[in-house]
Amino acid sequence: MCLYCITQNVTSKHYTSSETPVNSAALLERLLSRALRSAAAEGGPPSLAAAIRHAVFPGGARMRPRLCLAVARACAAEYAPAAMVAAVAIELLHCASLVHDDLPCFDNASTRRGRPAVHRAYGENLALLAGDALIVLAFQTVVLDERLEAEQRLKLLQVLAAAAGMPHGIAAGQGWECESDVVLADYQKSKTGSLFVAATAAAAIAAQVECAPWRKVGEYIGEAYQVADDICDVSSSPQLIGKPTGRDAALGRPNAVAQLGMDGAQRHLQQLVDACIAAIPCCPGRDELRAQFEFATQQLLTSRLARPAA
Amino acid sequence: MCLYCITQNVTSKHYTSSETPVNSAALLERLLSRALRSAAAEGGPPSLAAAIRHAVFPGGARMRPRLCLAVARACAAEYAPAAMVAAVAIELLHCASLVHDDLPCFDNASTRRGRPAVHRAYGENLALLAGDALIVLAFQTVVLDERLEAEQRLKLLQVLAAAAGMPHGIAAGQGWECESDVVLADYQKSKTGSLFVAATAAAAIAAQVECAPWRKVGEYIGEAYQVADDICDVSSSPQLIGKPTGRDAALGRPNAVAQLGMDGAQRHLQQLVDACIAAIPCCPGRDELRAQFEFATQQLLTSRLARPAA
Repeated sequence: MCLYCITQNVTSKHYTSSETPVNSAALLERLLSRALRSAAAEGGPPSLAAAIRHAVFPGGARMRPRLCLAVARACAAEYAPAAMVAAVAIELLHCASLVHDDLPCFDNASTRRGRPAVHRAYGENLALLAGDALIVLAFQTVVLDERLEAEQRLKLLQVLAAAAGMPHGIAAGQGWECESDVVLADYQKSKTGSLFVAATAAAAIAAQVECAPWRKVGEYIGEAYQVADDICDVSSSPQLIGKPTGRDAALGRPNAVAQLGMDGAQRHLQQLVDACIAAIPCCPGRDELRAQFEFATQQLLTSRLARPAA
Repeated sequence: MCLYCITQNVTSKHYTSSETPVNSAALLERLLSRALRSAAAEGGPPSLAAAIRHAVFPGGARMRPRLCLAVARACAAEYAPAAMVAAVAIELLHCASLVHDDLPCFDNASTRRGRPAVHRAYGENLALLAGDALIVLAFQTVVLDERLEAEQRLKLLQVLAAAAGMPHGIAAGQGWECESDVVLADYQKSKTGSLFVAATAAAAIAAQVECAPWRKVGEYIGEAYQVADDICDVSSSPQLIGKPTGRDAALGRPNAVAQLGMDGAQRHLQQLVDACIAAIPCCPGRDELRAQFEFATQQLLTSRLARPAA
């Protein structure tokens, strides 16, 4: 069954409001699985295919693709093929960045999402290649989706490339970690913000609405997420977030708690979420999206540390 | 000056037959430099930008993009924007693969093109990111080239993704090096052949002629290049080819000389080149292309070891 058929089957169902997120999440997993199956086709090296799967499944919170689908839903385009394929591609890029970020030459993280990091499970060489292959697969998934008009595919690819590469994408963000003179805002925007911006921008492209206001929403969310992540790194435990904590201090990286104190960091987080909610442009599902963001904020500020890692 | 202007300036000149390769090569360097400049734009991490430049300049023989342009020329489309941008993207993917292949978890090569490998010059972390950023840049360069029709860009992107990722691209080829049970033909086709096939297929797309016969030519060239590379690894010196020799034996990799002996490997190389020349489809510049391949073969079989490394 092709990606299109899966989407059609799901969209043909009738959901209650409470069921939708569950089914949307399940659909995302199926589409990710489908994308990986093409990479694991016969004739390829099986260990690399397994390492790629380990990098993507089981997933974390899938925050970025879920943000993409939430914005698309607010713009009445949740199940538009362009939103689905963008969500998949964004998660593949995110997984690629985690695999490379965990390598010994960066974080040297032993665990991710509560399991051994890819380089611990499969070796550094396969982890390196798994990241490379996932980057390629993210682009390939969009390129090959013939349900989308050519121009729409190119718009999505442009968003993905900007979010992944130089001078302002994830690679740039990780690159700032290798500089002695770091521009903090550039570092955070590139490393954490770029994929959140890609998620909201891609949703706008899928819904064929103006991108710029949604990019701003993505920027606020990315910044808020960075602050929340900094709080977790200082105050959570590896058991709760599925990866080592205290890494910012150990690696000499900037951290909002170190700069503002815990109370200050939490206040800053709330300010960012308020600004984000205020920035949501007029759209059919604006109220629902605001409610979702407010609910997510509650979790971030109170029980987030007990949720799965992103 | 934009990429388009550079191309137009060069194509407006009149070349003699002997001048063309020189100017074509110079144009390629300028286009590569232009592509890298976009990645090094203000606001990005400067050390990563420098590592990326180190990975691409000064270049080796630029065999893959030159093959792309040679096939495009044979099809009367040498300076078509699609051929130029494909040549650039293919070389960027090649450079990315070299940077990652040289890392300690793979070849641990200290030199490349007669200079320190990127990880030796800039550290493992920046070498990892330089490879990632170059992969993204390869796709981005094609995505953003508005001189090309959208459909043509997508065709080129499809070729690039297949050549770079899983299950049959460069990542797959390197992945075979991590398997205990290696399918030799799959390994060689993926690791070495994929970008040569991309070069000939992209040229066919640029010239808007049938791809399949040109893919076959690319396959022969890739196989021939692999055998020639195996011969160099056994019989050349690091000074002559700009990178360490004897790596296949040291790393327990398959090598045509080990399998067939030196005479057998050289005979096999000649057979592959003959098959390649016979496979060139009918096109305006068929005779010239055959002559180029025969000349290149002479170099491969006699003086290749004194030429710059690819």
